Amino acid sequence: MKIQKNKTSAKNALGQIMRGSLSISDYCQPFIEKSINDDLNVWTHIDEGEIQQQVEYLSANLQSKFEENLAVSRASHQKKSDSERIDPSAKLLGLPLAIKDIIDIAGIETGCGSKIYQGLEAPLYHKKAIDASVVSRLRAAGGILMGKTVTTEFATFQAADTKNPAALGRTPGGSSSGSAAAVAAGMAPLALGTQTAGSIVRPASYCGVVGFKPTIGTLDLSGVKALARSFDTLGVFAGCVEDAAFLMDSLTGNHWLVQCREDNQPRKVGLCRSPYWSAASDDLCKVWEDLVYLLKSMDGVIVDEFHLPPEFGGAVELHKRVLAREAFDALHFEWKTYRSLIRSKLAIILEEGEASKTECYLADIQKIGSLRREFDRALCDFDVLITPSSPGVPPPIEEGTGDPIFNRLWSMLGVPAMNVPGLQGEKGWPIGIQVVSRQGEDAKVIAASFWLENILNAT
Amino acid sequence: MKIQKNKTSAKNALGQIMRGSLSISDYCQPFIEKSINDDLNVWTHIDEGEIQQQVEYLSANLQSKFEENLAVSRASHQKKSDSERIDPSAKLLGLPLAIKDIIDIAGIETGCGSKIYQGLEAPLYHKKAIDASVVSRLRAAGGILMGKTVTTEFATFQAADTKNPAALGRTPGGSSSGSAAAVAAGMAPLALGTQTAGSIVRPASYCGVVGFKPTIGTLDLSGVKALARSFDTLGVFAGCVEDAAFLMDSLTGNHWLVQCREDNQPRKVGLCRSPYWSAASDDLCKVWEDLVYLLKSMDGVIVDEFHLPPEFGGAVELHKRVLAREAFDALHFEWKTYRSLIRSKLAIILEEGEASKTECYLADIQKIGSLRREFDRALCDFDVLITPSSPGVPPPIEEGTGDPIFNRLWSMLGVPAMNVPGLQGEKGWPIGIQVVSRQGEDAKVIAASFWLENILNAT
Repeated sequence: MKIQKNKTSAKNALGQIMRGSLSISDYCQPFIEKSINDDLNVWTHIDEGEIQQQVEYLSANLQSKFEENLAVSRASHQKKSDSERIDPSAKLLGLPLAIKDIIDIAGIETGCGSKIYQGLEAPLYHKKAIDASVVSRLRAAGGILMGKTVTTEFATFQAADTKNPAALGRTPGGSSSGSAAAVAAGMAPLALGTQTAGSIVRPASYCGVVGFKPTIGTLDLSGVKALARSFDTLGVFAGCVEDAAFLMDSLTGNHWLVQCREDNQPRKVGLCRSPYWSAASDDLCKVWEDLVYLLKSMDGVIVDEFHLPPEFGGAVELHKRVLAREAFDALHFEWKTYRSLIRSKLAIILEEGEASKTECYLADIQKIGSLRREFDRALCDFDVLITPSSPGVPPPIEEGTGDPIFNRLWSMLGVPAMNVPGLQGEKGWPIGIQVVSRQGEDAKVIAASFWLENILNAT
Repeated sequence: MKIQKNKTSAKNALGQIMRGSLSISDYCQPFIEKSINDDLNVWTHIDEGEIQQQVEYLSANLQSKFEENLAVSRASHQKKSDSERIDPSAKLLGLPLAIKDIIDIAGIETGCGSKIYQGLEAPLYHKKAIDASVVSRLRAAGGILMGKTVTTEFATFQAADTKNPAALGRTPGGSSSGSAAAVAAGMAPLALGTQTAGSIVRPASYCGVVGFKPTIGTLDLSGVKALARSFDTLGVFAGCVEDAAFLMDSLTGNHWLVQCREDNQPRKVGLCRSPYWSAASDDLCKVWEDLVYLLKSMDGVIVDEFHLPPEFGGAVELHKRVLAREAFDALHFEWKTYRSLIRSKLAIILEEGEASKTECYLADIQKIGSLRREFDRALCDFDVLITPSSPGVPPPIEEGTGDPIFNRLWSMLGVPAMNVPGLQGEKGWPIGIQVVSRQGEDAKVIAASFWLENILNAT
């Protein structure tokens, strides 16, 4: 059940760039070439000139230069030039990044996969004045903003036209379709996405890449189009767990990368089929069985079955109801003003939200609060849970973006969740496995994902 | 300790408008006149033409017309005209609303009280493409958007130049300075504000109006400039508790107004001096003593002292640290690009946020989670707490916007908090009293505030 591992991780490439043994231009060129000849409909905005300008600028301003520029800028009262906005501790120097097209980049339009915003003819087409917070951080860290990637309409369920590089004819998943596919296709080593139901973990599973949704609230959402305020979470895609941790560190200033060590295996792991196991495909049942056998054979780690208390059974419906209501709130202007430009899958959700009773919504929010507390208790002394990322291999592209049934619960709980690739179903298509833990236990999820990735790569 | 109550509540005016006994124009005219002759620096954007256009439009399209228009618009594939965007159940028909200038109105710039955005010369001056969600709802409900009110810089602590209509020479408080003053001065019966530390309850206290911060997350923040994601909360200002409940109902579709009944008094009320009582002025000590005496004399209500467990003592510092860190995240682009245009009070906060360690921030977030759970338990069988809104009467305008020390804890807990006016200190200046309860117990806060308002008005 082996899948090939990325040859050079972004983290290692950065090391080479910093030591001078790899030029930014040489590293970026293959990503740029593939992206410009975008044969998978990954990008909604990509401009070779814009990218080469960043490559040239960063190449000319390696390391020591930053510190100089920063000193000058501190004394100045002018708008800072790009050079002055790069931190001396730049941690992404020259690494290309793909940005989901619900996240603002200054000077570029944000299309949101919607006829209301996307394209010069769209009624609300306009270029954004400022970067989203996360984009501003990436820029300050010396990252190269490659462009904007395809999202489903307002990050919901209407499939866009992106192809899955790991399974032709199959969906890349959604809503962060383009970001997951960009990493899988070698168009960018790192990408940003968002998850409200299953929009990071599911496409990562389908495209065979790492996708990490941190604890809700970890990354600031300023400049990101909102869908459902109780669940919206920014996260990352990468080719390996180390790169995902490394990008998270660069976005937050934290030190999660140190969790990726061979001597840092979890103490106790729960195998959680989840209350939705009846949705599992034959493919999933087969790889799950193999995985359980494999993990139980590991030395030094306690691996036990884990069953959620019965009250978690209704989580999917609860999540759907709250998502519909909050999406109606968040997209109120668009719904009231341009209803005819909203496609049917989203319109159904917004109609449900509009018809919802506020008393029920408020009671649902209370219920979510108690399930979050209950999950903290239920996890007992398990460090992490291992659970499916998706019902199986990616479904045919005509059937939509796949079912987030194995993701909604974790999105609702706001807990960290990482898709670890490495398993395969029918025709070698990817099936991802998900590592989750309590809110705030992102370090445990990263450590256990690194451990799991190594196991899956070794077999 | 009596203060005069608004003669006509917005809710009663609406009743008269709907019955045809008051014209929208007659109701609005005094508000418009006072606002146009803005002698208190309440407004950052006010345009008589824009307002009159709305008055005329709404006057010409009373009630039945809405239903017709809506039917037409459902069949149409065009952008809806204003008429088509008004719900047939319009609940704010013709009521003027003041909007804090960190909340987007389509077609108008959002100044955020910042040199970066405010005024034609500002580097990022631009008109917003869409309404914030809450504004879109107000528009759909038939409200009249009067204009944008003064906010301190990015809703923090640098005083703007708004005067306090209830205490000349004194601060109106911040950051929702203009919205509180607009209601106090009779420039609008209703207003929107936001609270991250004490930006609704404190200005309401200083200006002698009702200010309500609902449970965190109740109102969608799309189109509202973020400051600190763990605390930012939209709320309302009004002349009386009924109007605040009525506006909340219109914004959410809930039915909180029914809580405002004379037979709906709380069962058990906690008197909570809070861990910050040492900040209380002599004025506050005096009115607090009178209030305690008064409430303890009420029939049918248990009134007891309430003391928070000792672990709440550090809440103010905890709140400050998290606010600084999250403000640095939210304002990352502005800080990195236009640092020289950020004033010193905010710069100090952002420097603290930039220097903060992410490990400490994440630990602080966990700590806040446990204090929120602990508060739920600590409240026991008390329906609500009654606690000071501010350390006393508004301080002199030269001294800033006053201290949010009696607000930070409740903002940190994300609980509903209502300022009830009616008490007075030195020179008859207002001192507000705050009613709080658990997250989700907004109904109890509204009911108890209505009860308290009646008591204070009767004395």
